[in-house]
Amino acid sequence: MPDAHFYPVIVAGGRGTRFWPLSRARRAKQLLPLAGRQSMIQQTFARLRPLAPKKNFWVITNDLLRPAILKQLPQLPRAQVIAEPAARNTAPAIGLAAFLLQRRDPDAVLGMFPADHVIADEKRFLGDLEATASIAASGQNIVVMGVRPNRPETGYGYIELGAKVDGCFRVLRFREKPDRKTAEQFLWSGNFLWNSGMFVWSARTLCSALHEHLPATASVLEEIADTFGSSRFQRALKKLYPKVENISIDYAVLEPRSAKGEQASGLFCIPADFGWNDLGSWTALHEYKLNNHTKDGNVIEAAGELALDASNNYIHAPGKFVAAVGVNDLVVVETGDALLITTLQNSQDVGKVVTVLDRKKRKDLV
Amino acid sequence: MPDAHFYPVIVAGGRGTRFWPLSRARRAKQLLPLAGRQSMIQQTFARLRPLAPKKNFWVITNDLLRPAILKQLPQLPRAQVIAEPAARNTAPAIGLAAFLLQRRDPDAVLGMFPADHVIADEKRFLGDLEATASIAASGQNIVVMGVRPNRPETGYGYIELGAKVDGCFRVLRFREKPDRKTAEQFLWSGNFLWNSGMFVWSARTLCSALHEHLPATASVLEEIADTFGSSRFQRALKKLYPKVENISIDYAVLEPRSAKGEQASGLFCIPADFGWNDLGSWTALHEYKLNNHTKDGNVIEAAGELALDASNNYIHAPGKFVAAVGVNDLVVVETGDALLITTLQNSQDVGKVVTVLDRKKRKDLV
Repeated sequence: MPDAHFYPVIVAGGRGTRFWPLSRARRAKQLLPLAGRQSMIQQTFARLRPLAPKKNFWVITNDLLRPAILKQLPQLPRAQVIAEPAARNTAPAIGLAAFLLQRRDPDAVLGMFPADHVIADEKRFLGDLEATASIAASGQNIVVMGVRPNRPETGYGYIELGAKVDGCFRVLRFREKPDRKTAEQFLWSGNFLWNSGMFVWSARTLCSALHEHLPATASVLEEIADTFGSSRFQRALKKLYPKVENISIDYAVLEPRSAKGEQASGLFCIPADFGWNDLGSWTALHEYKLNNHTKDGNVIEAAGELALDASNNYIHAPGKFVAAVGVNDLVVVETGDALLITTLQNSQDVGKVVTVLDRKKRKDLV
Repeated sequence: MPDAHFYPVIVAGGRGTRFWPLSRARRAKQLLPLAGRQSMIQQTFARLRPLAPKKNFWVITNDLLRPAILKQLPQLPRAQVIAEPAARNTAPAIGLAAFLLQRRDPDAVLGMFPADHVIADEKRFLGDLEATASIAASGQNIVVMGVRPNRPETGYGYIELGAKVDGCFRVLRFREKPDRKTAEQFLWSGNFLWNSGMFVWSARTLCSALHEHLPATASVLEEIADTFGSSRFQRALKKLYPKVENISIDYAVLEPRSAKGEQASGLFCIPADFGWNDLGSWTALHEYKLNNHTKDGNVIEAAGELALDASNNYIHAPGKFVAAVGVNDLVVVETGDALLITTLQNSQDVGKVVTVLDRKKRKDLV
């Protein structure tokens, strides 16, 4: 059931360079239909839609992506698709949303959702989220959605669970991206969940937490928020927003908050089991797309295909007939102007291509 | 100096499937500019041009390729670009040319040249060829151009050299494609040359050799040759040519001839040292294109390129920006409708792709 006081805030400012050459500065990962016909952000919106009225949705993005987002999500109130004039990470982004909402609805509960994750079991997701929102609505609670790990991933932060309370857990502490050995210990202990980047809290709680842990930034954000709805907003945003700290919500609020201790912190974690995947690389996408219909681990998106003695490749070349002969573990992605050739193992390094292209000022290619 | 009695016969009926997807049934390897701005057959013509007047050139090809050859070589007398109605290998092809020329010029000397080889040192080639032609012009001699091997190649036939006579050698015998171990022995002995597929002989010699070794086919070819220049030629060719034996000139004439013994056979071999390469696969092309300007062994034909921790790749994607990240020894070839991904080691198997596409009746792709 839609909840009039629940406000999904979709964080969509990322560039997603690891999906180059498909992703570009104006067509970032969240705007691509990587996991279906709809783009990631369209899927994110559709998934959350049952929980809140359309007018409650907010998107925080940047100038380059805003036009495409408005086009992909015409249902959204245009003024609530906010373009940061400078990238300042998640704390100011969600913080601005909190101050804006506090002024509109004193009972506002915010959820922060990355725009570029996939979730297999949407029904379960909605159930978990409703439970999360009801915990967040009371007191000064902050709830994070945790994902049960199935591999010793070193690319995510972890949440160490504390006491169990009514189907959810208190948070003992947050742990930064671990090394491989530590990640294996986390996996086997069974007491650590991946930090999904999805948080829920009341606007009241978040605003006071920001004043406590990030006071200068909080004041600037309040100053901006005070102009919202007036003709001064865009100017204030452009002038003031670049002054806020460049910091993630994890570092700015969650970690200092957890230092208060398991009880006093008011931090809770919902162990979520809804088939979460952040699709962090071509390799993750390849894995995600493997199913009963794929042969020899080849995921080939093309007009036609022929694999001879070839296995475990991800090939994206729409409109072409693809022949793979005697090759394994490759990633090949073709667009109108570019061709990427790498391996599943090296696909995390694709961001380096964008770094080089940035340096060479090849704006046509990034 | 052009020799009025020398007739270059360019054999251009091959399909060159190992260069798929660039090569197609109507755009075979010899029509592609693989080794420069001109196509292979244009280069072959230009290379031979100093030795004979234009009107002396003949091309034996097939119906699918004839239109493109006429377009690429408008200098040729159209009637002398002959399309075989059925593929019957080299013996009938060069045999038909011999019977046709015997009727025009009793002193004709023919050279048979594959249309799809590259030769680095054209000056040396012409010198060698002049020597060859003068040997072929006298008596019943047959001269083959041999290439000094630089690797134990198992994909070519070999010529075992006999006695040395005035800068050339008598042929002791022809040896079929050897296994690896035999090829290594050939290489180390220093007494074996690669059979280049380039032969020179008088029309008289070849015609009598065909009557001796391939009598039924010789009669059919004579019957066709008798109609040349009349309105009956095309019908005769279409009706009779399919009846000839499907056999190479090596099997049909050279091997039985060599069995007569080193002296009696009249077989000579010119050891040619003009940088010959038959560009038999993408791998051979990659090797051919390596030079002082290539970095880390990458040959990348594209609008732009970036190789990160990538070496020894051949990538052909004209118009695209190519990024190769952490890949080695690959062959990637892109055309408007197809994308081939294989390895240098497997590039010989590309013909199998064409076999499958033939079977699937994908005429659009072969």
